[in-house]
Amino acid sequence: MADTPVPVLALTTGEPAGIGPELAVMLAAEEAPAARLVAVGDPGLLAERAALIGRDVELVECTPGEPLPTPRPGMLPVWPVALRAPSRPGELEVANAAYVLETLDLAVRACREGQAAGMVTAPLHKGVILDAGHAGFTGHTEYLRDACGVDEVVMLLATDSALHAGQPGWRGSAALRVALATTHLPLREVSDALTGPRLARVLRILDADLRRWFGVAAPRIAVCGLNPHAGEGGHLGREELDVIIPVLEALRAEGLTLDGPLPADTLFTPRHLEGVDAVLAMYHDQGLPVLKYAGFGRAANITLGLPLVRTSVDHGTALDLAGRGSADPGSLRVAVALAADMARRGAEVAPM
Amino acid sequence: MADTPVPVLALTTGEPAGIGPELAVMLAAEEAPAARLVAVGDPGLLAERAALIGRDVELVECTPGEPLPTPRPGMLPVWPVALRAPSRPGELEVANAAYVLETLDLAVRACREGQAAGMVTAPLHKGVILDAGHAGFTGHTEYLRDACGVDEVVMLLATDSALHAGQPGWRGSAALRVALATTHLPLREVSDALTGPRLARVLRILDADLRRWFGVAAPRIAVCGLNPHAGEGGHLGREELDVIIPVLEALRAEGLTLDGPLPADTLFTPRHLEGVDAVLAMYHDQGLPVLKYAGFGRAANITLGLPLVRTSVDHGTALDLAGRGSADPGSLRVAVALAADMARRGAEVAPM
Repeated sequence: MADTPVPVLALTTGEPAGIGPELAVMLAAEEAPAARLVAVGDPGLLAERAALIGRDVELVECTPGEPLPTPRPGMLPVWPVALRAPSRPGELEVANAAYVLETLDLAVRACREGQAAGMVTAPLHKGVILDAGHAGFTGHTEYLRDACGVDEVVMLLATDSALHAGQPGWRGSAALRVALATTHLPLREVSDALTGPRLARVLRILDADLRRWFGVAAPRIAVCGLNPHAGEGGHLGREELDVIIPVLEALRAEGLTLDGPLPADTLFTPRHLEGVDAVLAMYHDQGLPVLKYAGFGRAANITLGLPLVRTSVDHGTALDLAGRGSADPGSLRVAVALAADMARRGAEVAPM
Repeated sequence: MADTPVPVLALTTGEPAGIGPELAVMLAAEEAPAARLVAVGDPGLLAERAALIGRDVELVECTPGEPLPTPRPGMLPVWPVALRAPSRPGELEVANAAYVLETLDLAVRACREGQAAGMVTAPLHKGVILDAGHAGFTGHTEYLRDACGVDEVVMLLATDSALHAGQPGWRGSAALRVALATTHLPLREVSDALTGPRLARVLRILDADLRRWFGVAAPRIAVCGLNPHAGEGGHLGREELDVIIPVLEALRAEGLTLDGPLPADTLFTPRHLEGVDAVLAMYHDQGLPVLKYAGFGRAANITLGLPLVRTSVDHGTALDLAGRGSADPGSLRVAVALAADMARRGAEVAPM
């Protein structure tokens, strides 16, 4: 790894009325990152927010494909995308939905063409993008899936490992990683959405990307049941017997190492987490409350299954905090560190 | 509280093949408890398990209604119930299902007749009780509901507050308490089970019992949404708009203090938990993974809505550990401490 250059990461600055632009400015001021960040957004907006929160930052406009300036503290290169309308902190503007999507398109292109080793995304605001006429828009994850032309992606949240070292009762040393078999669905649609083929695709992606991006030679994945007590032998639901167990058996025969299905409230305890590289929860609120409880402000969101590295903060646009400089860049810092690690490991295994 | 006598608690020793009997023996050896424990079970079984795990315990057979012996270290009074068949650690015996239920009946009677100020239950094994022909048996909670002749009970899990004092990022000092609006249902039945009347009954019980048993003068309850992101304004499910929000508004008008509905993965973070006396999760795996992650081995289960105090361990019978003396009595200790606190507070407010 000593020979791998510091990876360039495209940082999309997200919803302009939210905290994304100022978080980018805050990170630019920090020492010796593991990555060279290039902000993707409107340089005027970034300059304005930097002034608003009283931070000195030198913004240097660049073009993807051309060399980046030599890194120096307080300097932030920017690949410019122009706002469609002026943006004020906290005030959503429908015209800027197209701006937000353009920053994503530019970052995807830069990754795919090798100008960036990965992308890190600040939060966008789904509602304003829907209001702008992008019907069916459900978020970064699905947008990037379509932009990259893949069929299935997997949402993984991870805390940084430093957090857990001091956790009472925590005996492991690894970060907590929780992937989801289904994501943004009404609860009543979850059981039917969890088909055997979907579960198998998700587990294969999780296994493959733990190897590729996280350097885990033989991933061990702990799988939650769908029902309480993992169905208790069929007394509390049959999906474990009919869907989950057959898929786990088939994938074990292919060589995957899988624990479970385990009751979710048993799985998230030291005895069952020890030695586990990732947990697969069957749905959003089965896995994310414990992940965010364990690592709020020090967790990041990772999209697996893409042909590129993508991480994100685990929080929203925080419109009510925007422009005050009081937002916490902790999650963005973790997202950058994770993307940098992933890009380095991915480059070792299979250069993009 | 100084004048309130040390409460007598009936400790049902649970499935005889599990760890319940030895946990009771372990607690008997501990110093100066906040309660006077009386084991409910077979004295021969308790003596045998004490010998098996190498603990000295003096078992004194007593009769409910007659005075208990003066407390002394290592002495455990027993209200005897006879095993129906010999019990060996780890080996379930269908004939003893009736024994387990009789211990519960005796404890309920002792509470209702004022011989005990509350009951603490060691784990039972649902499967063996079902196999014994008690069709529809779903656990302690529902059995006690029916035994007490009430329509609705609420399952609440709580960690002890000492745990949280050292938790990174934790700013409060209170225990984490999580109640459930629905309990042991297949996931696909949860959305329909969450009716407005049910939710209102659960919230009223939770509010009333936080006042009565926990001494909270004006309880503040944080309520989870049912769907991910609490439905995101209807984009991810309508139960928040159609069921939850109307109930919360009606109950606020009655004087209850209710936050939410909040996304479950946002709610379980320091900012939202601060000042909250209990969280209401809409279903089992939305609330219990985080509770058990936060407090495994130091959490207990409490049944609200009963005319008596009932707490329980948060773990199962652990048949594989039974008879070895290696089981952790941490959760039972918390269950006893909570029941003692509840009994004292309940006695101040409204003597049973």
